[in-house]
Amino acid sequence: DNEVVLYGQVNLGLNITTAGTDQLKVSNISSRIGFKGQEDLGGGMKAFFKVETGIGPDSAPASSFGSREAWVGLKGDFGSVGLGRGKTPYTLATEELDPFYFNESLGLTNTSMSNYRANNSIRYDGEFGPVSVAVNNSFGEDKTAGKNASNEISASVKFSGQGFAVFGAVNSNKPGGAKANDAYLVGASANIGDLNLGGAVQHTDDAAGKNDDVLLLVGYTMGNASVQLGGIVYDEDRKTKDQVTAGFYYSLSKRTTILTEYTSNYVGVKNDNSFIVGLAHSF
Amino acid sequence: DNEVVLYGQVNLGLNITTAGTDQLKVSNISSRIGFKGQEDLGGGMKAFFKVETGIGPDSAPASSFGSREAWVGLKGDFGSVGLGRGKTPYTLATEELDPFYFNESLGLTNTSMSNYRANNSIRYDGEFGPVSVAVNNSFGEDKTAGKNASNEISASVKFSGQGFAVFGAVNSNKPGGAKANDAYLVGASANIGDLNLGGAVQHTDDAAGKNDDVLLLVGYTMGNASVQLGGIVYDEDRKTKDQVTAGFYYSLSKRTTILTEYTSNYVGVKNDNSFIVGLAHSF
Amino acid sequence: DNEVVLYGQVNLGLNITTAGTDQLKVSNISSRIGFKGQEDLGGGMKAFFKVETGIGPDSAPASSFGSREAWVGLKGDFGSVGLGRGKTPYTLATEELDPFYFNESLGLTNTSMSNYRANNSIRYDGEFGPVSVAVNNSFGEDKTAGKNASNEISASVKFSGQGFAVFGAVNSNKPGGAKANDAYLVGASANIGDLNLGGAVQHTDDAAGKNDDVLLLVGYTMGNASVQLGGIVYDEDRKTKDQVTAGFYYSLSKRTTILTEYTSNYVGVKNDNSFIVGLAHSF
Repeated sequence: DNEVVLYGQVNLGLNITTAGTDQLKVSNISSRIGFKGQEDLGGGMKAFFKVETGIGPDSAPASSFGSREAWVGLKGDFGSVGLGRGKTPYTLATEELDPFYFNESLGLTNTSMSNYRANNSIRYDGEFGPVSVAVNNSFGEDKTAGKNASNEISASVKFSGQGFAVFGAVNSNKPGGAKANDAYLVGASANIGDLNLGGAVQHTDDAAGKNDDVLLLVGYTMGNASVQLGGIVYDEDRKTKDQVTAGFYYSLSKRTTILTEYTSNYVGVKNDNSFIVGLAHSF
Repeated sequence: DNEVVLYGQVNLGLNITTAGTDQLKVSNISSRIGFKGQEDLGGGMKAFFKVETGIGPDSAPASSFGSREAWVGLKGDFGSVGLGRGKTPYTLATEELDPFYFNESLGLTNTSMSNYRANNSIRYDGEFGPVSVAVNNSFGEDKTAGKNASNEISASVKFSGQGFAVFGAVNSNKPGGAKANDAYLVGASANIGDLNLGGAVQHTDDAAGKNDDVLLLVGYTMGNASVQLGGIVYDEDRKTKDQVTAGFYYSLSKRTTILTEYTSNYVGVKNDNSFIVGLAHSF
Repeated sequence: DNEVVLYGQVNLGLNITTAGTDQLKVSNISSRIGFKGQEDLGGGMKAFFKVETGIGPDSAPASSFGSREAWVGLKGDFGSVGLGRGKTPYTLATEELDPFYFNESLGLTNTSMSNYRANNSIRYDGEFGPVSVAVNNSFGEDKTAGKNASNEISASVKFSGQGFAVFGAVNSNKPGGAKANDAYLVGASANIGDLNLGGAVQHTDDAAGKNDDVLLLVGYTMGNASVQLGGIVYDEDRKTKDQVTAGFYYSLSKRTTILTEYTSNYVGVKNDNSFIVGLAHSF
């Protein structure tokens, strides 16, 4: 229980894409290396830490230790309090309906003017029976003589039932001295035998105006194989982006999966299509 | 004995500061991740290595492997010889009187025109009964046709007695083709029951002229709690910086400490104050 | 067999060089830290990964995770297929005759207009009795509307006999929209008791014209000590660079070696000489 764990994922794929020009590429799929651990402090209390770094195995870009997640904190019966950096509760809520490897998010965070990960955060996570809550505040640290600091607050709540879950999240990303960009999300997911279903609605009220986006997901698992199909319909007022993603996965083991994914994004005048065949390996 | 050890610290705090503008921040407190190991070569000889990297868990700045310490060397009855990069003997001498987390040094190295860490170093460490010595030479590697290379040499000696220690250090940091910046330090520390006392005097002779600085430290430990109070009075000629730091620490375990520190620096026209409440976790 | 392994080398030396100006330096000798592992998938199949990062212990330059090698793949009776980044088969063929630490290559790749390591690669390695083959294709990913993507393909074949090996390699590095830079290499190595011998001929047909380079290597091992002497005669048409390298090595253990190497490169008008005494430690 007091051990430091080295863990990670190396995920790479052969990728055909029409974004920009048509290209055949080797693409990184969110590869990472991390160190994490916890220490039993007695009385039900634990200290924990995590430092997770994104890596680009295909072309080795400059890296920043802890670029994905980095936390130190205490947890006990009261829940968990951490200081550090990482995905916000809002981001994690959108990922409830995002089983895809290649695009880290099916897209709801892309249009929400929220940060995918937040720096300089203090975070609380708690579980109360079937209900789990999370709140994260990210300090902007950019205060100047004439301008307040930026700040981003993000919160989520989730109710997990027998084979289903419902959840909601809010995010308010306020630049220093400007109007806050707000996002609201409600969603649900269910497992009926080998079938998984999910859906969410997002309302955003930000510098781009007020918009509503709808996400639907359906999947089916058969032994080691799984197929997932998801789509987002963005608000008509925006008219910039719709998205369909389909994935087929075959698990060679608990740690190793062959994946194929196809994504099509409507970007105003044409569709960007991307197809990838890859290998995802966790350790 | 032949194992590679993964170790580190993740230390973060909520920090209120008046430096620049008043701000509330999440601040990194010298977090690091390292790999170290040694190999028994027989006959009392060992090979050792260490690579320690500074990390910024709060905002993940670009990182450089081995940014804190990186050494390879041999050690035996004769002592230890290493090649690499790290804190100089002079820096380590100033840290004899620096129990504070947030400011890596109570400040003596700040005004000494010595490098906190030195690149391209060859270093010797030896122990002779109660006396330990260290010498480090750092090669500048910036020689050009008309200019000699920079060079920095640093040395320290320490006598450890029953509950007390006295130590001295010298540092000469010579830029290529310019006058050397020299610093001299003598200090002492003592433990009387739960009380710890320390003091040091630094003399610098460098591009800023000749100056003398005085450091005093007093602390008291009571079970898992400890309080430390330190101050530096800089030479009147300089008139730029005085410093008082107070810290209160509560150890949740050998590896996890809650810390609160307050620092006030006089910077010519006003005081910069900083207060932090943090969690320091080692692994 | 399912373990993740942390491994690496910290190699540093005191180096006297005449390249540029005469200098005494502490020089890094290809230090690295890596993580690797494999997972048994059953039926003779394994998943593997490797992420190896170059480090500069002497001065801690900015680092990129996986800067040396980074792979994920599957291997079985058919051989090994990997996606990632690393040394090409051509580079590895030149290293068959390169026992020196300080210069990663005795120089053949330096004049071949091939990349030492290739990004965005798909690679196959196979063994067929005494014959091993490797093929690597590196996708350029720089396609634009009017220009094809760059591409580099590299392949090698090696026959290993009783105390000898013969090998050949080809490399074709094609910039987008320009003529391919081709390189061809044939070589052989032999061990006769404590003596090792090797030689190779390289033919290049690239933007610098057509050239032929010859490499010779001879070495002798006596217990823990080894001496190696290598030279390259570059094609007369080029007249820019000849190279002689001599190395003396003393192993303190399987993991720790004291090395001394001397290299002299003729660079058109004068010789650049470099002498290094160093310590190489693996873990």
